[in-house]
Amino acid sequence: MSHAVPTELLADRLRRAGEVAAEQGQDVLLITPGTDLRYLVDHSGESHERLTCLVLPAAGHRAPPALVVPRLEAPGFDTATLEALGIEILTWTDGEDPYLLVSDLAGGPTRMAVADGMPAHHVFGLRDAFPDVPQSLAGPVVRELRMRKDAAEIAELRAAGAAIDRVHARMAELLKPGRTEAQVGADIAAAIVAEGHTEAAFVIVGSGPNGASPHHDVSDRVIEPGDIVVIDIGGPLPSGYHSDCTRTYAVGGEPSAEIAATYAVLQEAQERSVQSVRPGVSAQSVDDAAREPITEAGHGSRFVHRTGHGIGLDVHEEPYIVGGNALTLEPGMAFSVEPGIYTDGAWGARIEDIVVVTESGVDRLNNGPRDLVVL
Amino acid sequence: MSHAVPTELLADRLRRAGEVAAEQGQDVLLITPGTDLRYLVDHSGESHERLTCLVLPAAGHRAPPALVVPRLEAPGFDTATLEALGIEILTWTDGEDPYLLVSDLAGGPTRMAVADGMPAHHVFGLRDAFPDVPQSLAGPVVRELRMRKDAAEIAELRAAGAAIDRVHARMAELLKPGRTEAQVGADIAAAIVAEGHTEAAFVIVGSGPNGASPHHDVSDRVIEPGDIVVIDIGGPLPSGYHSDCTRTYAVGGEPSAEIAATYAVLQEAQERSVQSVRPGVSAQSVDDAAREPITEAGHGSRFVHRTGHGIGLDVHEEPYIVGGNALTLEPGMAFSVEPGIYTDGAWGARIEDIVVVTESGVDRLNNGPRDLVVL
Repeated sequence: MSHAVPTELLADRLRRAGEVAAEQGQDVLLITPGTDLRYLVDHSGESHERLTCLVLPAAGHRAPPALVVPRLEAPGFDTATLEALGIEILTWTDGEDPYLLVSDLAGGPTRMAVADGMPAHHVFGLRDAFPDVPQSLAGPVVRELRMRKDAAEIAELRAAGAAIDRVHARMAELLKPGRTEAQVGADIAAAIVAEGHTEAAFVIVGSGPNGASPHHDVSDRVIEPGDIVVIDIGGPLPSGYHSDCTRTYAVGGEPSAEIAATYAVLQEAQERSVQSVRPGVSAQSVDDAAREPITEAGHGSRFVHRTGHGIGLDVHEEPYIVGGNALTLEPGMAFSVEPGIYTDGAWGARIEDIVVVTESGVDRLNNGPRDLVVL
Repeated sequence: MSHAVPTELLADRLRRAGEVAAEQGQDVLLITPGTDLRYLVDHSGESHERLTCLVLPAAGHRAPPALVVPRLEAPGFDTATLEALGIEILTWTDGEDPYLLVSDLAGGPTRMAVADGMPAHHVFGLRDAFPDVPQSLAGPVVRELRMRKDAAEIAELRAAGAAIDRVHARMAELLKPGRTEAQVGADIAAAIVAEGHTEAAFVIVGSGPNGASPHHDVSDRVIEPGDIVVIDIGGPLPSGYHSDCTRTYAVGGEPSAEIAATYAVLQEAQERSVQSVRPGVSAQSVDDAAREPITEAGHGSRFVHRTGHGIGLDVHEEPYIVGGNALTLEPGMAFSVEPGIYTDGAWGARIEDIVVVTESGVDRLNNGPRDLVVL
């Protein structure tokens, strides 16, 4: 497949994951289907009730890595790649206990770390198969790798950013008074796919009072002239890397002076926050940079969420740009900067770009106009 | 919304869940977004990294039920329904600790049960907020309710079965030699939506040797005259209840005598298995009824999976029709009966119907021809 991750890169990820696991005092990582598995072996796996699990020993352990997989799902994996990575495939059949298979493979660990997204029924299945072995999360291990994007990952995020910018650029033809949010949303979803995404992972069309609900999706509300409309959209490319971009539109005419003034505060806050990004500063300082101008203008209580989230194979991943996160930003970290100001029952506005920390500063991956675009 | 579950029915489900929890020695159920939440409050919630959690005390506990939800996702819930159900809504804001909020609400439990699908990061967040409180799965509680469908649920499953039967009835126009599996699959997916599903949750087009992989999806393989093709398709209706039906087709002419003979064994096995279903028999006996004729004909090692799975808001749920499952079938239980025979590298066949246990026997929800249909 054309988006395959080079085997050498996967081998390097597996090796580094094992090293970080050892540094963090883990003996084995247990990774069920999801984006961590995709990052490590270029296959998401199937997340059904049957256990699929990568057993990845920490550096220094004798056991080789192995993939435990239901027999009937094994054909979905690229055996040649797994063999090249030195990963043994072990299948199990309905009626067998896959947790005991994992326990046989793991070689008597004294600590295990499980994927953050592993469903509880597998967590407890493994707990029972490894009595007295403390469980913790693999997230703190895997995020040390995933948080720092390599050049190929940044190229994918850049392509995703350009693709979603092209969708926003078509908004004048899609977002019109007299149409419902749902109708506009359906057309946007089709445009997201037409511009190269494999699906429209989320489409928020928050018109008028619905714009004050940051995680609104779409409704049957008819868009009216004079509405302020928040459009927050994105999805994955075939590589799995996501776009996510928000713009706010004024439909059918210029906004009121009050709305324009509030929006100007938001735009200034988003700009200051983006410009604050560089290696060496903390995640919370980027949140502060967005929050301070909004608070100073008296709108602090109307900015009800964090400033941003990391992005990659997941739409939301580390690093989170939030108060209290002292994490120091480093080159290769990619995240959203998306302050918003919301007035319950009336309107909302948000501006969101994906940015990447560079060696000397910041690179924006979304580049459409950030003004309150009048349609 | 037109598919709303009546509030009285939800209230009854919540009450019975609390009773079963108490019978099983639990103090509180903690239910994160997913189908258990949808079953109990008619809303799936959003399964992002932020905690949304229904806190449902077992019968006899003083604490009222409550829903902990991120402030920015609260507008997605139907407040009137939750209020009518006596569920308090408690929001939290980025930077606060939602697990401590749950712990404050739960009223000092000595045992807690978490949703089977709860991601590990929430499981461990709750573990840390309730030190020394043993955790187990809520599945054994909730499945006691979900496994026994009420009349409205069976009506939805029946409608889903009819909808997917209509898609199979159109196979002559979709499945033709010279087209790739992916092309056929895309048309089937569109037909699944056109027939009333909200999405095509899965589309397996396993032609020729790909039919020997039970969980194959689609590929760029071009379908050739003489191919045997396994078509296993389904999705949810707007109510959330799923269809799932497999038929096997012979494309471009009659099959060989050997294939016809093997298929006849499969068809007989599927028929015997369906006819074995009635109240009072065990789940494993239905598996046995499918497996015995296949084994007697010498194909036992080629039937590599269990006979079936329950179906409802999840495509796969309890009861599982598998060797070792002594569960006694009761009226209202709904599941698939889907034996298959697979020849690696050559071809495969599977026949799948959804059935419901009635007061006196069995009702089939898929009714299209089960022969090896020649297209």
